[in-house]
This record gives sequence, structure tokens and C-alpha cells, in this order.
Amino acid sequence: MTVATMVDAAARMPRPGDSGDHESLRLWLRLFTCTTMIERQVGSALKREFGSSLPRFDLLAQLDRCRDGLRMSELSERTLTTGGNITWLVRALESEGLVSRRVAAADRRAAIVRLTPAGQRHFNAMARAHERWIIDLFATLPAADQRTLRRLLDTLGRQFRSTRTSE
Amino acid sequence: MTVATMVDAAARMPRPGDSGDHESLRLWLRLFTCTTMIERQVGSALKREFGSSLPRFDLLAQLDRCRDGLRMSELSERTLTTGGNITWLVRALESEGLVSRRVAAADRRAAIVRLTPAGQRHFNAMARAHERWIIDLFATLPAADQRTLRRLLDTLGRQFRSTRTSE
Repeated sequence: MTVATMVDAAARMPRPGDSGDHESLRLWLRLFTCTTMIERQVGSALKREFGSSLPRFDLLAQLDRCRDGLRMSELSERTLTTGGNITWLVRALESEGLVSRRVAAADRRAAIVRLTPAGQRHFNAMARAHERWIIDLFATLPAADQRTLRRLLDTLGRQFRSTRTSE
Repeated sequence: MTVATMVDAAARMPRPGDSGDHESLRLWLRLFTCTTMIERQVGSALKREFGSSLPRFDLLAQLDRCRDGLRMSELSERTLTTGGNITWLVRALESEGLVSRRVAAADRRAAIVRLTPAGQRHFNAMARAHERWIIDLFATLPAADQRTLRRLLDTLGRQFRSTRTSE
């Protein structure tokens, strides 16, 4: 499951006039909304141009990173998709000839999922289109502003990592 | 379903050395990662401090906004949760006395879901904690940087809305 199916985060925020209308909450709402909007636009474009979806794209992307293939359990973990949904998704992709399943030599109970050559071509085309969409989506933000935005998000990200570590 | 269960977006990005390692893609990865990290931290904190979750919090937040209650179909739409999951979630919250279901006067087939007084108190406590967590998460970013970040995200958001409208 992806951010394309995220809820309207505004409902979590204090209602106008509530005392807690804090700058950080407004900032978080913007961050959440921008991420959601991009994911939705990418999801729509995947559907429109490739008859695909974010869950399918993300599953193929994981297989693209691991050319030796992945077990169903690894795919489930890496895409944060539950077992039933992964099975359903892999079967659909297999029936379209985009992935193959082979029994692993080391553990006969575990099937290894791999991209087929057709699946690799399909993923490459989607990855190129994805890059183009992202570039287009950010295009109106001048390069200097993009660098500032990335610098501020880097600072935030480092803070989260250190907070998490110190818990 | 929320961003707490989002996939690792890095897999979608070109591998190091690929020609397409574009600044916009790096920026999108940061944006996505920051959003994911905050959602995960909020999800963990909801579990730790309230024995709750983001889907539960988001459902209660929608009911908090609509004091006259919502139909199951409306809840499903607003939380972007499928019918089966909404039924399951509402039943769980009902069994804990946090929401009630009443048959609607206008349409006897449609049950209206409302917050109970206990559900309202529970939501209020979670909303206050949520605000505190968000303030803490952004605390190390100086106020001026938070304003810059919000301004840049506002610009991006406006661009997305105009892109979508012109499609």
C-alpha cells in the first residue's frame, strides 16, 4: 500500500480557532499534502500510460534491484504489502508474463520471484516515464528553490533519524 | 491506509551511475522519506501511548469533524479505506464504546456512525498528543527555516493543483 491511498490529513489538525493551530502542524499538513498529491498524480499516470499502479510499480522496482530474485516473504516485507495481497499481485504479474516464479534450490518450499525480460522492459519504460513525470511536477520550482527545499528536508530527515535512535 | 505503510520509494529511483540521477528525483525522495518517517513515528506513538493506530485515529478524526455522524460509505470514502476494512474498524471501535451506529431516519438501510462521549474524549487526547509530537519532530528546524519550507511547499502545492486542473 502506498501514499496514493493516504487519507486527508487535514482532519487530524485542530479546527480553525482552536488554540493549537501551530506553525509546525501547518507545515506538516503541507508536507503530507504535497507527498499525497505527487503520489496520486504518479498513480494516475501509471494507470493511464501503462495500465499499471503504484503497488505493481513498487513490486517490479524491488525485483529490478534484486536481479537474483526475491522470495514472496522478502517481497512482502520490502513492499510492506501483506502476504495475501502479494500473492494476488505476483499471480497477476505472472499471468501477464512480467515475473516468473521458480522453486528455490536451497529451500524447496520457497518460490523465488524474478523479472522476466518482458517485465524488465516494462519496468524500464515505467521508470523512465516516472522520472519524466517527477521532473515535470517540480519544474516550476526554480533550481535554487529546489536546492533549498532539499537542504531543509535533509536537515529534518537527520533530526528524525537521531530522534528515533535516541528513543 | 496511510503513509505509515508506504514502500521504500528509493527503489523507484535510478540506480547510482544511471544517467537519470536528476535533482528533482532526489528532492522527491527526500520529500517522500520525510513524510514516511513522520507518519511512522506518529503511528508508533499512537500505538505506544494509546494502543491505537493511524487508521483508527484518522477514522475518529473524520467523525470529530462531522458531529452529526457519517454513513459507512462516507467514512470509507473520506478515509480512503475499502468497505470491508471500514466495517471491521467500526465494529472494533464500537465494541470499545468509542463509536455508535444508529439506523438513519431517512434511509433505514444506512447506519450512521457517530463518536460516543468516550470516543470524543479519546480522540481529543490523541489529537493533543499528535500536535505535541509534530511540534517536537519539527523543533530542531529554526522558525525561519520552517517558514521557508512551508512557503516552498505552498508553491509546489499550487503548481500541482494547476497541473491537475489543466489536464
